[in-house]
Amino acid sequence: MASLDDTTDPSGHLIAAKQVQGTTVYNTGLEKLGSVEDVMIDKATGRIAYAILSFGGFLGIGDRYYPLPWEKLTYNTEVGGYVVDIDREVLEGAPSYTDEATAGWNDEAWGRGVYTYYGVHPFWDIAP
Amino acid sequence: MASLDDTTDPSGHLIAAKQVQGTTVYNTGLEKLGSVEDVMIDKATGRIAYAILSFGGFLGIGDRYYPLPWEKLTYNTEVGGYVVDIDREVLEGAPSYTDEATAGWNDEAWGRGVYTYYGVHPFWDIAP
Repeated sequence: MASLDDTTDPSGHLIAAKQVQGTTVYNTGLEKLGSVEDVMIDKATGRIAYAILSFGGFLGIGDRYYPLPWEKLTYNTEVGGYVVDIDREVLEGAPSYTDEATAGWNDEAWGRGVYTYYGVHPFWDIAP
Repeated sequence: MASLDDTTDPSGHLIAAKQVQGTTVYNTGLEKLGSVEDVMIDKATGRIAYAILSFGGFLGIGDRYYPLPWEKLTYNTEVGGYVVDIDREVLEGAPSYTDEATAGWNDEAWGRGVYTYYGVHPFWDIAP
């Protein structure tokens, strides 16, 4: 049992979006990569379409946002953050956008490309 | 096409959690009821388990939080908020919790009760 405001309890099968936002993201070597900027919700199905990772300065090119399938985030209680099993080289070539630019949120092919890139089957292909 | 920060564009099939949080909630008579406090995410499936509506002072009993199935929220572009088709009498008897108390987030029967109360089939009964 955890109240909505209890950020010290990572147990349980539910988590508030506010607890996800701002959480640090690490690679499998537990090096800090960035943080979760937000999660994008698919309105019709109520599914998390993407977790948006913010890797500011990570690649030396200022803030960039990387949409990832939710399945790629694994919470690690030791470091108190999410670990993503993605190589740096893979991330460097991953679909991303800048703060200024627009992302292809309404472009189905763009979204499919994100999922394909990470080897995850798009949830919208699966019957609800 | 909408950037993550563009809150003026309610179109498209995706929405950022930050845009949902704080959005005003109305009844079908377009009377203001409260606002969306947050959304609770089912970690395993990446589904929105509940939208948490905050109806502070609505019933004269201070802040109370009402978990609702995501399906109950309909965005209304005219008022710029969510409309919920739920009678006041129904809301008064709905599952809720206070800021201080704990909610039964890890209690499957409690969650089932919420969905049953609003006549929505629990998404966890449906094969992913």
